[in-house]
Amino acid sequence: MGGFCAEMLADLKSAGIEYSLGQEALFSVSLDHMRYSSPPECAVFAKRAEDIGNTLKICSRYVCPVTVRGSGTGCAAGCVPFCGGIVLDVSGINFIEIDPASRTAHVGAGAVTADVDAAAAKHGLMYAPDPSSHKYCSIGGNISCNAGGLRAAKYGVTRDNVLALAAYLADGSEITCGLPLKKFSAGPNLRDLFIGSEGTLGVVSQAWLRLLPRPQEKAAALAFFAGDEKGFEGIKAVMRSPLEPAVLEFMDTETVDCVRRRDASLQIPEKSCALLAEFDGAGATGQAEHFAEILGKIPGATARASKNEAEAEAFWRVRRAASPAMYGLANTKISQDIVLPFARVGEFFEFFKKLGRQSGLHTPIFGHAADGNYHIHFMYDGNIPGERERAQQGMDAAVIKAVELGGAVSGEHGIGALKAKYMALQHSPKELETMRKIKEALDPLNILNRGKVYFPQDLSAYTPLKGVKLPWD
Amino acid sequence: MGGFCAEMLADLKSAGIEYSLGQEALFSVSLDHMRYSSPPECAVFAKRAEDIGNTLKICSRYVCPVTVRGSGTGCAAGCVPFCGGIVLDVSGINFIEIDPASRTAHVGAGAVTADVDAAAAKHGLMYAPDPSSHKYCSIGGNISCNAGGLRAAKYGVTRDNVLALAAYLADGSEITCGLPLKKFSAGPNLRDLFIGSEGTLGVVSQAWLRLLPRPQEKAAALAFFAGDEKGFEGIKAVMRSPLEPAVLEFMDTETVDCVRRRDASLQIPEKSCALLAEFDGAGATGQAEHFAEILGKIPGATARASKNEAEAEAFWRVRRAASPAMYGLANTKISQDIVLPFARVGEFFEFFKKLGRQSGLHTPIFGHAADGNYHIHFMYDGNIPGERERAQQGMDAAVIKAVELGGAVSGEHGIGALKAKYMALQHSPKELETMRKIKEALDPLNILNRGKVYFPQDLSAYTPLKGVKLPWD
Repeated sequence: MGGFCAEMLADLKSAGIEYSLGQEALFSVSLDHMRYSSPPECAVFAKRAEDIGNTLKICSRYVCPVTVRGSGTGCAAGCVPFCGGIVLDVSGINFIEIDPASRTAHVGAGAVTADVDAAAAKHGLMYAPDPSSHKYCSIGGNISCNAGGLRAAKYGVTRDNVLALAAYLADGSEITCGLPLKKFSAGPNLRDLFIGSEGTLGVVSQAWLRLLPRPQEKAAALAFFAGDEKGFEGIKAVMRSPLEPAVLEFMDTETVDCVRRRDASLQIPEKSCALLAEFDGAGATGQAEHFAEILGKIPGATARASKNEAEAEAFWRVRRAASPAMYGLANTKISQDIVLPFARVGEFFEFFKKLGRQSGLHTPIFGHAADGNYHIHFMYDGNIPGERERAQQGMDAAVIKAVELGGAVSGEHGIGALKAKYMALQHSPKELETMRKIKEALDPLNILNRGKVYFPQDLSAYTPLKGVKLPWD
Repeated sequence: MGGFCAEMLADLKSAGIEYSLGQEALFSVSLDHMRYSSPPECAVFAKRAEDIGNTLKICSRYVCPVTVRGSGTGCAAGCVPFCGGIVLDVSGINFIEIDPASRTAHVGAGAVTADVDAAAAKHGLMYAPDPSSHKYCSIGGNISCNAGGLRAAKYGVTRDNVLALAAYLADGSEITCGLPLKKFSAGPNLRDLFIGSEGTLGVVSQAWLRLLPRPQEKAAALAFFAGDEKGFEGIKAVMRSPLEPAVLEFMDTETVDCVRRRDASLQIPEKSCALLAEFDGAGATGQAEHFAEILGKIPGATARASKNEAEAEAFWRVRRAASPAMYGLANTKISQDIVLPFARVGEFFEFFKKLGRQSGLHTPIFGHAADGNYHIHFMYDGNIPGERERAQQGMDAAVIKAVELGGAVSGEHGIGALKAKYMALQHSPKELETMRKIKEALDPLNILNRGKVYFPQDLSAYTPLKGVKLPWD
């Protein structure tokens, strides 16, 4: 039936491909941000695009599973090789070329997202998508799970900013999908099929990205509300207004309270939720002031626009503290990145908080309010028997509710291994069958990211590792 | 081997599906805007979504080809049933529901594009894509070939404005692709695979569209230049500026000269090409003035911003006359909608005009300059032996050149039947094989729009019909 075998090493060597069988290397490519670890049998480090093609040819020959890996910042265990075989690390293919005339970037799959933006900045341009992990995550990983980010409110997600890509199919042959042009209507769209397919249909080697003029002006604004309900009023008021925030981040009362207790210098009012906005481009300062004016009218709310960069930075500190501050509630979290229709946000929050009370656990939420994309959390103590199970049960119920309300099980993290169980909630049997047929047509040996997305696996034998320091910790 | 047979009629009847075998009905569904006609054996008129599913079930049973049809405004003979069988006309499924709170429209595949925009306008919203045929074309057809339009300069193409869709697969089962949410990352993206697949993978029955706040302010500006080269300078000057035109239409010297001779009241300078811009939203008037100021500095150019709606309308008359005025050069045209990288536009024009001189035919061009999407034409007299062949040879050479320069064979019309011969120019054998594998996985009996896109056919037996009046003529 195939699988990894020692004969493959000679083939890799003769193709000039760098690999390692060392325990440390195997561990380093065995996990992502969620810390479920399952070491592969061999780690391949691609340095050139053709290394990807040659590795896939070899893996096809031996029917060996191959799991592609960028920086490993994923949140769905999408790059964890639970089925063994080879991990194909493409982080070494990280070239970045900016073409200011056509406002495009041509980059390797391993290029770090923030590095692309920094290179664009030298030409007065910007690469808009900014996942929270942008200082570490790679463009290939962003494409893999159609990553979003904070600026998605104004600039869309990864899909909206990729013009074309090149990828290797399971058999090692290369294809290009789209062209770096503003329009293209020439046959079925392979580009958008690859974006978001999480390494199950092929391995992206390089991409051509859309760059935008870098906004010269920026301004932030921050509002606090007396409770979540008032916060939702604030979101609605912004969405009904002509304001066009580049960033619109909601932090619920539980989250804000963690931040308040962690850092008194932020002068956060008690029992309040928060809405942080950033505006950019011409008129940004005026928009921030207008935001503060609109939201200041909501009873019990306080809202301020930043007067300078230092003040904007202070506003941002509230948002940046949100994720780490939650560990003041309990030492472990389960999170999901659901999407909700605007009209159903209040209903979902009420349901979710009730789940929290029933399970006796904290359930902080923050998220990208302009997109309806919320990061919901169950906080639990990993050392108290039963807490993890209660948290997991609560989360499952929450995801079911989100789908019932017309929402999605993932907005920007993708499905990977951890959410594969939710696919049947989101998609009908016929939809899943269609996806699997495409998978089978493109990867008949099922070597690419085996056991993910379409095929729920029993992961009950795995628990997140404790005390592992990752580069972004 | 299957095909249409009389037994199918009883099945259609018992499913309550409206159909016709009448010669007039068969002719009316036998052609699109290009006027290549090939009547089917039966015309089905779907009135409800389930009529699509039931028709496909019946066609699957009898392995009968089925060609879906919206309004028939296509420019690539994509809905012409060259392989016989059934034409499935979905223009009767034309409901339009606007949800102003979520800024979305839920529409039937047969809804006319301009009707959707008009319905949105009642709520202060707009549906942005505006193909030239927007008063007649349908959303289903727009999705089928990923239609563009004039406002694509600012608002993108159909793909950028479709949130979700429902479609029937070849076997008659229904799937939904995406959800009407702003983010969605839950498995391979079937939505974008269907957009642009020209009815070869399934039949779209309904869609959820993104609506935008309707701009309150609008202003137009028009510039004339002393020859095409100066016009390209104008385009570059706009693209380098901070201006954000919603519409930026280029008409070359040959095109403008046709318009000038047709309508003296437009006061067009001799031997000039033109650039029409429309700006919308806050600051539109200022942007139009800025446009005129920038372009007025180019030697020999004259540029004006509209002072009122009547003047803007006069500017627009120049653009609207472009296509019909060309018939002053010859009674027939062959056109293509290629896309060019910005840096190669001048090089392509030079090549194309030389082809025109070599073939002794006129070669007017106009197009969507901000997207690099140009409509290129060979004008010929259908009554003069050999002219059509020379025009066709010249066009083939032009399309080869466009691809050589890094361009695309179609920006917004799609491939259909007429451009299938160009697919191997645009895509490698492996890319075509990948597309065909997906087609085979989703439509194993090859009943959906058989003989299109992936499979070049010999159409030499067909010529465009003369003297047929279509609804939009």
